[in-house]
Amino acid sequence: MEIQQDEENTPSVEQLTEVLETNSAERLDEFLRSLSSSEKAHILTELPAERQLEVLNTLESEDAAHLVESISEAQAVEIISNLEISDAAELFNELESNEQTDLLARLDPEHAEEILSEMDFEEASDARERLEYPAHSAGGLMITELLSYPETLTVEEVVRDLRTRIDDFSDHAVQYVFIASHNEHLLGVLRLRDLVLKPLATPVRNIMISDPLSVSVDTTLSELEDIFDGNKFLGVPVVDQSQRLVGVVRRADMEEALGERSDSAYLKASGILGGEELRSMPVLQRSRRRLSWLSVNILLNVMAASVIALHQETLEAVIALAVFLPIISDMSGCSGAQAIAVSIRELTLGTVRVDELLRVWSKEAMVGVINGVVLGCIIGLVAWAWKGNIYLGMVLGVALAVNTLIAVSVGGLLPLILKRLDRDPALASGPILTTMTDMCGFFIVLTLANSFLSLLV
Amino acid sequence: MEIQQDEENTPSVEQLTEVLETNSAERLDEFLRSLSSSEKAHILTELPAERQLEVLNTLESEDAAHLVESISEAQAVEIISNLEISDAAELFNELESNEQTDLLARLDPEHAEEILSEMDFEEASDARERLEYPAHSAGGLMITELLSYPETLTVEEVVRDLRTRIDDFSDHAVQYVFIASHNEHLLGVLRLRDLVLKPLATPVRNIMISDPLSVSVDTTLSELEDIFDGNKFLGVPVVDQSQRLVGVVRRADMEEALGERSDSAYLKASGILGGEELRSMPVLQRSRRRLSWLSVNILLNVMAASVIALHQETLEAVIALAVFLPIISDMSGCSGAQAIAVSIRELTLGTVRVDELLRVWSKEAMVGVINGVVLGCIIGLVAWAWKGNIYLGMVLGVALAVNTLIAVSVGGLLPLILKRLDRDPALASGPILTTMTDMCGFFIVLTLANSFLSLLV
Repeated sequence: MEIQQDEENTPSVEQLTEVLETNSAERLDEFLRSLSSSEKAHILTELPAERQLEVLNTLESEDAAHLVESISEAQAVEIISNLEISDAAELFNELESNEQTDLLARLDPEHAEEILSEMDFEEASDARERLEYPAHSAGGLMITELLSYPETLTVEEVVRDLRTRIDDFSDHAVQYVFIASHNEHLLGVLRLRDLVLKPLATPVRNIMISDPLSVSVDTTLSELEDIFDGNKFLGVPVVDQSQRLVGVVRRADMEEALGERSDSAYLKASGILGGEELRSMPVLQRSRRRLSWLSVNILLNVMAASVIALHQETLEAVIALAVFLPIISDMSGCSGAQAIAVSIRELTLGTVRVDELLRVWSKEAMVGVINGVVLGCIIGLVAWAWKGNIYLGMVLGVALAVNTLIAVSVGGLLPLILKRLDRDPALASGPILTTMTDMCGFFIVLTLANSFLSLLV
Repeated sequence: MEIQQDEENTPSVEQLTEVLETNSAERLDEFLRSLSSSEKAHILTELPAERQLEVLNTLESEDAAHLVESISEAQAVEIISNLEISDAAELFNELESNEQTDLLARLDPEHAEEILSEMDFEEASDARERLEYPAHSAGGLMITELLSYPETLTVEEVVRDLRTRIDDFSDHAVQYVFIASHNEHLLGVLRLRDLVLKPLATPVRNIMISDPLSVSVDTTLSELEDIFDGNKFLGVPVVDQSQRLVGVVRRADMEEALGERSDSAYLKASGILGGEELRSMPVLQRSRRRLSWLSVNILLNVMAASVIALHQETLEAVIALAVFLPIISDMSGCSGAQAIAVSIRELTLGTVRVDELLRVWSKEAMVGVINGVVLGCIIGLVAWAWKGNIYLGMVLGVALAVNTLIAVSVGGLLPLILKRLDRDPALASGPILTTMTDMCGFFIVLTLANSFLSLLV
């Protein structure tokens, strides 16, 4: 069965509605499983909220869980928020452990608590335990579905037991079998391939990898990335503070979390805060979230523009300057944004540390001087050509050149400084940068112009 | 062995240099393996180019390959560019197939060709074949190290052969064993767990998953994401145009590619083109790449500012307007950037299609009206309070409100239109948006001001 994209024959809401009306859980599941995950995402977006609920309620809870796992978390949370608590609890019972934790963490805490209190006791208490860990730590990323055996068994005994239990585990979950002591301390790891290749009578103690690599529950995402980059393992066992084996972080889940981190950096840098925004969310919520960012920005902008207000006489004398102020502001913002992006990227890759301000600055300054001179010449020539006044060109050219140097310096260093202060560089760098470069840019243009006023008018 | 971060005891360049001077490949490898991948990244960045070469040349090529695989591709390419062709070829022989292809694709094509011509004949011809596929397609992402057997074998025969071959395969590579016909057509998939659990005499034909899911070499990353989201497989087999089994795309590699796509969207939206920039790259190269973006932007900015130039008399009459023009420009840019980010994200998630312009516009327009009114009131009140002229406040408030609506409309629709035209929305949306919103913003402010000129002066 080769997967084919069939552009012309995209499934429609009508088709889904038809299937829904047969009221057959099986037919509905079959229809949904025939869709790709983006088709599902799209068809659910188009569906009114009450129809979305009907879909989840018609499906067996296991199949509903499958549906929820295959769409984005932002969308899943949106749909689940509308479910009856008891239906939501049933669905959560069926979710894979890390998906369960991710979604509960994204729900309104009160709502999550209500769902937890109606879930199976054991599922709920496991979930509560995982919810204690930050989402992007080993504890938050791990799955707790794992197979562990005492070291006294033979390959044959393990294989015999595996036969009865393995159906509960997806391919994605079973890669390793763990060997643990009676107090649940991790003693070793058996790879599935070793179970295949060794004689049945071998004691597992002889073929396990002893003293295996493990991480603690509070290992950060960046540390996990480091660990997976350095080896080829599919997963790493996780132990809690008392060294008990509690879960496994899988490579694919770590990679997925890295992708989420990048997406979130991009969204935050673009001024989308508080998680993803989907256009199916209520207008007021979308508007409020966006305004929280915009209202900070407008105040910063007013602050920066007050520099212009202080130099109104200069502006009045050389009105042409007003044409160039927005250009100076925007171009410095662009140069600074490039430096910010490179710093954030280098921090992520580990090629720069938060205390290497001097190295970063010297590297940025070189680029800043070259780009400043080039951009300064362009703007200078434009101004000269337009007004026929070479001094106007020189004032603007020098101002943009100097401000470009300032912009790349600020842009390069800000993420390091913010990170050091434990602030989120992706979020705060942009607005701080533009405020500073606007103020400096306006100040330089207008002060220079004032000094050479007689040559400009 | 639990991984511990030891902040105070970070390995230094001096330590590495000391180890290097012993000239022992083994000790050097041991030292490097004791570092996390970000420590490696950082220590290599600090090392002068000739020392970096010394490291690679001292290591056995297998260990050098391990080092290269554990750092970022951008940094790896930078280091490899300085290697002798023959040393580079030896290193490439040892790389995992998908890493080989990724790095060759990022090198200068002539340089890549030279390396290929010195590599082992078989490795090189496989690599050439893979290089034909786009990097983010199934063909570009797959590994070609796979285990395949004819369907006539029994479990025992497969296990016996596995025993001799499996050492060449890392954990990360072996998850499935494939069953193929004599002309290499994919017939079935055997999961490692089935080999563990079934009696040895069973013919593999009876336990394989027949007619398994497969993808063609030109399946796109988004299609792969769809496929993996919909199931729990660790990997999906890849077949070429003539239906021959040629490789496997692993879930973790797909997730990694998604992360790269997000990173690249963030970098492009920030004006970093032509791949990642590392500060260790030559200044002129960094400067040239950044300027390619800035020089387009400055021309667009001049174009937008020409709208101001056309209304100089109005500006001369009400000089206070000059203070607000950069604010109007920046705030509209911010509102538009939010809408762009949401559209790009929704396109990625599949919750919106490129032809749903009307739906996106209506959703954006609602937010635009609310945010426009709020921002307009703020700026209007600031202007009124400052100049004591309510009409000035009204002109600016109305202008910002209308321009916010324009900005979110343009920002929401641009990514859809660009994607439809097969352009990269992350790259082009920003500059097009700010040019349009600047022109509209300046035009609205100055035309409105001109109409009510007698009330403003």
